[in-house]
Amino acid sequence: MLDPFSIEESIVTYCVGMLMDAGLAFLSDTRTNAGVDQINSFRKMSVFENPGERVLTLLSAGNLAITQAVVSLIKDSQLKEGASLLNVSDMFAAARHVGDCIRDVHRRDAVSLKAFGIDFNASFLLGGQIKGEAPRLFSIYAAGNFVEATVDTPYFQIGESKYGKPILDRIFHWDSTLEEAAKCALISMDSTLKSNLSVGMPLDLMCYRRDSLRADQRLRIEADNPYFKSLRTAWGERIKQAFRELPGLDLEQCVTK
Amino acid sequence: MLDPFSIEESIVTYCVGMLMDAGLAFLSDTRTNAGVDQINSFRKMSVFENPGERVLTLLSAGNLAITQAVVSLIKDSQLKEGASLLNVSDMFAAARHVGDCIRDVHRRDAVSLKAFGIDFNASFLLGGQIKGEAPRLFSIYAAGNFVEATVDTPYFQIGESKYGKPILDRIFHWDSTLEEAAKCALISMDSTLKSNLSVGMPLDLMCYRRDSLRADQRLRIEADNPYFKSLRTAWGERIKQAFRELPGLDLEQCVTK
Repeated sequence: MLDPFSIEESIVTYCVGMLMDAGLAFLSDTRTNAGVDQINSFRKMSVFENPGERVLTLLSAGNLAITQAVVSLIKDSQLKEGASLLNVSDMFAAARHVGDCIRDVHRRDAVSLKAFGIDFNASFLLGGQIKGEAPRLFSIYAAGNFVEATVDTPYFQIGESKYGKPILDRIFHWDSTLEEAAKCALISMDSTLKSNLSVGMPLDLMCYRRDSLRADQRLRIEADNPYFKSLRTAWGERIKQAFRELPGLDLEQCVTK
Repeated sequence: MLDPFSIEESIVTYCVGMLMDAGLAFLSDTRTNAGVDQINSFRKMSVFENPGERVLTLLSAGNLAITQAVVSLIKDSQLKEGASLLNVSDMFAAARHVGDCIRDVHRRDAVSLKAFGIDFNASFLLGGQIKGEAPRLFSIYAAGNFVEATVDTPYFQIGESKYGKPILDRIFHWDSTLEEAAKCALISMDSTLKSNLSVGMPLDLMCYRRDSLRADQRLRIEADNPYFKSLRTAWGERIKQAFRELPGLDLEQCVTK
C-alpha cells in the first residue's frame, strides 16, 4: 500500500494532437489523480495567441507539479526579455523554448524528486502556426528534445494512449477535415474514458483552421454536453451493429491441431 | 542501446480468455521477440485433455524462458506422482498447481535473473472444465496467486492488452455465444496486431462448449486464413462507415472559453 503522502499528483491523462492539411485539432481531458482516492480536475491545455499573427496550443501530461512549473515558466517568459512563445520566429524555435523550460525545471527539481523515488515524468504536445509558416505539431519529451508530426505520422498522443489509438489509426489522416478530426478525437477519448478511471471529463477541444491565425474554435465539453453524449451513444450502437453484421466463424469447421 | 546479448526472448504477446454461460474461448498470438531484431514464433497455448472428463487450456505471456519452464514442469508433473492438471479434482486446484509450478521456477531462477537486471515476468490464463464443475477461468500472476473470472468480469487479458480492450468491453458479455466470443476475440486481436509489432500471426483459437468435455474446436489461424482476412477487411470498412454516419460537431458553434 502506497503512503498517500508519498503520491504526487499526476496527470495520467489523455491528450491527442492532430496535424492535417486543413489545420490542427487538440483534445485533452482534465483528470488528475494522486492515487485512486484523490482525484481532481486541471486544465491541461494552454493556448498562446497573437490574433492574426500566431496561435500555439500546448498540452501536458505527467507529474502535475512538473507540468505546472513548465507552463508557469513559459508564461513568465512572455513578461521578460528573451525568447517566449509570443516572440519566437517559428514553431521549431517555439518547441525549443518549451524544451528549455522543461530543462530549467529538471535542473531545479530532478535531484530532489529522485531522493523521493519520483521520476521526472512530463510530456508535452505543442502545435500551432506562426505567420509565414505552415501549421506544425511537435511531441516534446521530458528530456526537452522533440519529434515533429509529418504527413505519414500526422498525430501524437501523450498519457494513456493505447485504448484510443486503434480508432485514430483507422480513421484519421492528413486529408481529414477539422470536423472529422474532432469527431475522431472524441471517439478516441470515449474509448479511453471507458477503460481508464484516471482519464475523466470535462474535455477541452481546440480546432485550428489553417491560416486563420485565430484561436476561435475552442470548446469545453462538460459531462452533460448533448453532442458528446449523443456521439458516445451512437458510436456504441454502431459498433455493436457492425459487429453483429460481420460474418461469424463456423466453429464446426474447426479442426483439432 | 541495449546489448543484444542481454535481451532475453520475451513474449510480449496478446492472449485473451473468455468465460461465458456457453463455455470458454481463448485466443493467443505466437510472436516472441528479443529486441526488434530478433523475432520468433512460439505457441503460447497448451491444452490438457482427458476426453469426456476434463479439458484445460493454458495461455502464457512474459519471459519465454520462464513460461516455457513453467509449462515444462506442468507437463512433467503428469508423468510423476502428485498433483497434475490431469488428476486434480477441480479447477481451483488446477490453478493452484500452475501457481506451484511458477513458484518452483521462481525459486530456481529469480535470483540469477535479478543479477542480470531481468524481472521475473510471467503471467498465465488457465480455463477449463472438470466433470462435476462448471467451466472456470483464472488469471495467474508471476507470484503464483490468481483471480477468477465472474459473470461481471467474464474475461481476462495478458500481455499487450490495452489496444484490444475497448471492443471486448463493448461487445463481450456472459450471455455471448461461443461464435460471438471468437469473433470478438479476433477483432480485439486485429486492433492489437495493427498497433504493436511484437504481437504477430499466426493465431491459436480454442473454443470450448460447456459440458462437451472435449477440445475439438481448435484452430491455427495463419496469415492467409480467408475468414480472418475477410473479417479484418470488413471490420475496417464497417468502422469507417459507422464513423462517417455519426453526427459531426458544428465547429462554427464553438465559442472561445
